[in-house]
Amino acid sequence: MPSVEIVAVGTELLLGQLVDTNTPFIASELARAGIDVRATQSVGDNRARIAGAVRTSLARAQGVVMTGGLGPTIDDLTREAVCDALEVGTDLYEPALRQMEAIFAKFGRPMRANNRKQAELPAGSRPLDNPHGTAPGFIAFASDEKFVACMPGVPREMKPMLREQVVPFLRERFGARETIVTRIIHTIGLGESEIDHRIADLFGSYENPKIALLAHDFRADVKIMAKASTADEADAMIAPLQAEIVRRLEDGVFGYDADTPASAILTLMRSQQRRLAIAESCTGGRIAAAFTSVPGSSQTFVGAVVAYDNAVKISQLDVDAGALERNGAVSDEVAREMARGARARLGADVALSTTGVAGPDGGTAEKPVGLVLFALDDGTENSRTWSFRLEGDREAIQQRATMTALNLLWRYAKGQEP
Amino acid sequence: MPSVEIVAVGTELLLGQLVDTNTPFIASELARAGIDVRATQSVGDNRARIAGAVRTSLARAQGVVMTGGLGPTIDDLTREAVCDALEVGTDLYEPALRQMEAIFAKFGRPMRANNRKQAELPAGSRPLDNPHGTAPGFIAFASDEKFVACMPGVPREMKPMLREQVVPFLRERFGARETIVTRIIHTIGLGESEIDHRIADLFGSYENPKIALLAHDFRADVKIMAKASTADEADAMIAPLQAEIVRRLEDGVFGYDADTPASAILTLMRSQQRRLAIAESCTGGRIAAAFTSVPGSSQTFVGAVVAYDNAVKISQLDVDAGALERNGAVSDEVAREMARGARARLGADVALSTTGVAGPDGGTAEKPVGLVLFALDDGTENSRTWSFRLEGDREAIQQRATMTALNLLWRYAKGQEP
Repeated sequence: MPSVEIVAVGTELLLGQLVDTNTPFIASELARAGIDVRATQSVGDNRARIAGAVRTSLARAQGVVMTGGLGPTIDDLTREAVCDALEVGTDLYEPALRQMEAIFAKFGRPMRANNRKQAELPAGSRPLDNPHGTAPGFIAFASDEKFVACMPGVPREMKPMLREQVVPFLRERFGARETIVTRIIHTIGLGESEIDHRIADLFGSYENPKIALLAHDFRADVKIMAKASTADEADAMIAPLQAEIVRRLEDGVFGYDADTPASAILTLMRSQQRRLAIAESCTGGRIAAAFTSVPGSSQTFVGAVVAYDNAVKISQLDVDAGALERNGAVSDEVAREMARGARARLGADVALSTTGVAGPDGGTAEKPVGLVLFALDDGTENSRTWSFRLEGDREAIQQRATMTALNLLWRYAKGQEP
Repeated sequence: MPSVEIVAVGTELLLGQLVDTNTPFIASELARAGIDVRATQSVGDNRARIAGAVRTSLARAQGVVMTGGLGPTIDDLTREAVCDALEVGTDLYEPALRQMEAIFAKFGRPMRANNRKQAELPAGSRPLDNPHGTAPGFIAFASDEKFVACMPGVPREMKPMLREQVVPFLRERFGARETIVTRIIHTIGLGESEIDHRIADLFGSYENPKIALLAHDFRADVKIMAKASTADEADAMIAPLQAEIVRRLEDGVFGYDADTPASAILTLMRSQQRRLAIAESCTGGRIAAAFTSVPGSSQTFVGAVVAYDNAVKISQLDVDAGALERNGAVSDEVAREMARGARARLGADVALSTTGVAGPDGGTAEKPVGLVLFALDDGTENSRTWSFRLEGDREAIQQRATMTALNLLWRYAKGQEP
């Protein structure tokens, strides 16, 4: 089976200051097109090392897809390195030169000599147009019919070039390929070991479709991947396995693929014709942001009060000043009043509140950093509070508190005891 | 100069479904320790290909740092592949077996045979303890004194193992190395081409320290990297260049290194003894989340109202129902009233509001998707509104509106005309 490798160029990738999102984007697009990626590399802005990486990948695969190093600066060495690896010279690609001259003329700036080199492509290359920048890409050919496709590293230039020019080239080159279809089953509130315990026997039993478990904080995804010649065939291979996994994890499955905990909650509450409000202290707007990420959320999510200051808890949520003084902001009573106030003041049917110590300061022996209280109010005796001790730094505690809130709300909306 | 390579193992990395954050984390920690990383690879869960990647990296570098593939499943093949690459067998590492047995006993679950293989390390390895999971790491040695350090792929297990065991090993192995110090100058509201125009002459002139420009939406970072034998020496090399860049970009520089737009705004407003409130419609809690990410923000940031539903704009922010009906929620008048209401109701000195069409639905010819209005109210005649047409999908519009709001607030707090 033919395969390609991905090579990302840039010293910044090796210093860890930039997370390389180009490689996963390319990998994902190639998987959709049924093109197998067996390995990826990243390499710094060094001509000999880039050439070495190209040779290594070409020895293992039929083609190499590269990003980065096509700019005008002295650090941009991908063109030269590919020429070295393939042992070819360069040809001037006139249309790219004309396009660059037009861009510089438009902005009234002189074109420098080093821009010209962007139009000098490895001899015999097929140029790739770049409507979003000055650097053209190219597909260079090795003597044994292997190839190297080079694209700029700027995502907004790379993405359309990949989709519109490189993927069609690869599809044609490799003929009709197998398709890989992926189904993601999202769970919340089940521990990784609990999920493993329930479905471990399925992991070893399947090669195609294949199962993988991806654990996040308070959430875990079970991924099913099937390879087949058509998407329909792959779907049919996935269906029975998906049904079995969902049967075993039912109390934790909130959705599939693009679903999020917030979208699942809104779908349930919309069907129940109930509207939701949030009162956030330590989560500081993150729960509201999760709900407002969902298109159409305004039908069900009415809004939130981020009551960071105690005076705001009193004025906007009708929290009793005496309760704040007696018990402090991080207390069951205040959490309860925040939820009740948000429901009444924002005109919702259900409201959830958060109050806690996100740190790094403000913790005490009794109320340590990481203590977060939640209250849910729906105007009935189902209203209740929860207390969690969350681990991590400020950011982790805020994120985990947000996910805990979504878990509680999802189970409530589903009619499960959270 | 000795160098290491990083190899990440996992088929999920090659399908683009998981962004590999381990590699940049390791790269960043090694850079801090002055250890040179020249290339990285990622490879799928395939024994022969993992062994091949190890051989490739070992041929180019003194050492390899690996993550992933140490678990108990049949897909976890890093141990076996490293044995293949180094042509050694395995030794049972008793303490790891004991620790695993204790963990399983604690949870009352039987230990399966496949867990035992986690304690079987390449012969002659130095084990790396894993207090956060069952899989020990190890450093295996090639006959020519080159080495392969293997760590689990779970970040919470990998990170402490790297910092506490692998980096100290590398420092000792390589002796005192050069240190790389990085200074990041953060700007907001200056275009990439504007920054390039102002400092382009500096890029080519410097090799050490070296300058790079990283562009984000509405923000750009100029990064200065210096290599020297001590951090003090590197700092001294950075200082004059930093001063020159800041002089040229002064109207856009909001901070350095760990600073964020929100932390810069809070620092300015705290020094002015002014308190801030936010009224968010289309940004849905994201501005509040940015401020509450900053430790100690509660001194200056009092809170926010996420007024998604029009009724909440009326009840919580005193927006005039007539104004909503006459002009719609996305109008200068409503933006102004939201800001005024937030300032008054939340007891702040300054308030900013957002209202706009995040899409994908709800756009009209007059008020298209991407139209976002902002208003700032400080109780004086400085109060004003802005209108922007932002590009992208829902998520991009919400993020860009958030960044625009922070840009406006920062310039306001600094006394610049936004």
